[in-house]
Amino acid sequence: MKEPGVLLAIDAGGSHTRAVVVSAGAECLGYGASSSGNATAVGADQALAALAEAASGALASASLGPDDVRQVVLAAAGEEYLLHGRAVAQALAMPAVKYTRAPDILAMYHSSAVEPAGVALVAGTGAIAARFRDLVTERVIDGTGWLLGDRGSGFWIGRKVARAVAADLDDTGEPTGLTRLVIEELGLQPAEGYRSPLLQALVAWAYDGQPVRLARLAPLAFRAEATDEIAAAITAEAEEVLARTLRLVREGHDELPVVLGGSVVVRGLLAPGRMSGGALTRELAGADVRTAHDGVAGAAIVGLRRSRATVDSDTLARLTRSIDELRNGA
Amino acid sequence: MKEPGVLLAIDAGGSHTRAVVVSAGAECLGYGASSSGNATAVGADQALAALAEAASGALASASLGPDDVRQVVLAAAGEEYLLHGRAVAQALAMPAVKYTRAPDILAMYHSSAVEPAGVALVAGTGAIAARFRDLVTERVIDGTGWLLGDRGSGFWIGRKVARAVAADLDDTGEPTGLTRLVIEELGLQPAEGYRSPLLQALVAWAYDGQPVRLARLAPLAFRAEATDEIAAAITAEAEEVLARTLRLVREGHDELPVVLGGSVVVRGLLAPGRMSGGALTRELAGADVRTAHDGVAGAAIVGLRRSRATVDSDTLARLTRSIDELRNGA
Repeated sequence: MKEPGVLLAIDAGGSHTRAVVVSAGAECLGYGASSSGNATAVGADQALAALAEAASGALASASLGPDDVRQVVLAAAGEEYLLHGRAVAQALAMPAVKYTRAPDILAMYHSSAVEPAGVALVAGTGAIAARFRDLVTERVIDGTGWLLGDRGSGFWIGRKVARAVAADLDDTGEPTGLTRLVIEELGLQPAEGYRSPLLQALVAWAYDGQPVRLARLAPLAFRAEATDEIAAAITAEAEEVLARTLRLVREGHDELPVVLGGSVVVRGLLAPGRMSGGALTRELAGADVRTAHDGVAGAAIVGLRRSRATVDSDTLARLTRSIDELRNGA
Repeated sequence: MKEPGVLLAIDAGGSHTRAVVVSAGAECLGYGASSSGNATAVGADQALAALAEAASGALASASLGPDDVRQVVLAAAGEEYLLHGRAVAQALAMPAVKYTRAPDILAMYHSSAVEPAGVALVAGTGAIAARFRDLVTERVIDGTGWLLGDRGSGFWIGRKVARAVAADLDDTGEPTGLTRLVIEELGLQPAEGYRSPLLQALVAWAYDGQPVRLARLAPLAFRAEATDEIAAAITAEAEEVLARTLRLVREGHDELPVVLGGSVVVRGLLAPGRMSGGALTRELAGADVRTAHDGVAGAAIVGLRRSRATVDSDTLARLTRSIDELRNGA
């Protein structure tokens, strides 16, 4: 039997796009995934194609079609004009469906919190913190991208790793254990030129693609930090600047729940087993802290709230459990 | 009467390409110019077209043709494979002519020095220092590009300016007089979004083109430094890192002449009337210092030296004077 009209929620991330089809009762009926849906990273055309692919995957797994969708929520980073509503509606073949665009960080927040007011800090390739109240963004700190900000992000860390290794290979900086890790990670082979052969190879790699690829080197800083002073200084500074970003966004609202997301935070700074006691741990002391892995559940929560459904912690638990069942079954 | 065979020297810069036709007696017979010939900045095809345009301009102004050229010297930044000899010879329609590729910084050095051994520091959009002996590069410091190094360069300064302004507009950093200058320079208009309207506009500008465009903001730091602490801190740090780059390349060779080039040094740090006494002034104390505006004369000097012509300070003076006559007449 067909649903009377379902919610399609899409989380367009920098590496993956995820889509879910959700009933009015907050049960996930279908799940789909595809590649990057970030228009800044891959361009609008490829991003729209990724949204459409994830959406059809989700609809197909629910045995539904575009006509069954009553509402679409798209969670995405970046400015609205890069991926505007009409283009999205056209790519999804749902021109007349109610459409909502939500900041990706709001979706990340609602993936782990149903409280109308709260805070999120996400540090993956980029870095941003925001404070919300009733789906409205009250304050944003950073999130200004790799050239202007994203302090403490994967790109920010990866760039510092690359610069430290370049200085080491150049004999203008301190020796660092990061050099061996970067050479291995990138498979660098000595190259000819008027510089040292491995620096020549690093230079050739660095400029042969999108700058944000440098985020790939960020995990090496966490791998080396226990034994290498340069790596430890980089991760400590990342932790300090992210703690500052969080402090600035929380200012006077320390009672609000805090949702953390992004690989730098979840798999880096606050990874299980990592020595703690750093700036972020101190900033979070006493706070109601949760983590989120992506924003797809939160995008659906945004949709449910907008359609005035009752949303409580049971709703989120039901939604999350049913998403996980389909995701792991797929 | 035709020359028995002339030298064609080309300096392929980031903003301009310049070409000269030079006689065996070091007289400039023709001058031509075109747009950027930097393959990293504009791509190999456009770079080759710029070389060809500047070369035909120089040949035409000398009333000569490709068959009159005995030797070609190309001074260019970056790696040789980006603009390889065969492609250059083809673009110039001079497949059988003796061809030499020289690092752009060597050409800059020989634009103001005929001593076989010496040092150059160039900080324009990028930043590099090198030490030479008999046309061979003995040591290179930095020049690793905007992602990995170029410490103290126009991009490096411009990025710090942009980040300081973003932090000011964001209320996460100190207020700075740079903000008004950047708004005026870029003609920023308040834009919609969930950030402050001018920050939104700055973010939109920053990512709408080549990252190295941020070098455009570097002169603002020098304009503001007398009255703004943030600007003064940026220019002071640029001076310190460039002084360090120079110190590392000179190490143990303080007797060598030093040629300085690039807008950050010539029109910024060491501009007439700027308060001196900074790190670079101190590093240069007692040194034999000269400045160079571009590398086209030096590219010709490299060619004359390679063809075993006698090259002394009279040669360079004659060459420079005859280039200037044609350049200013053109």
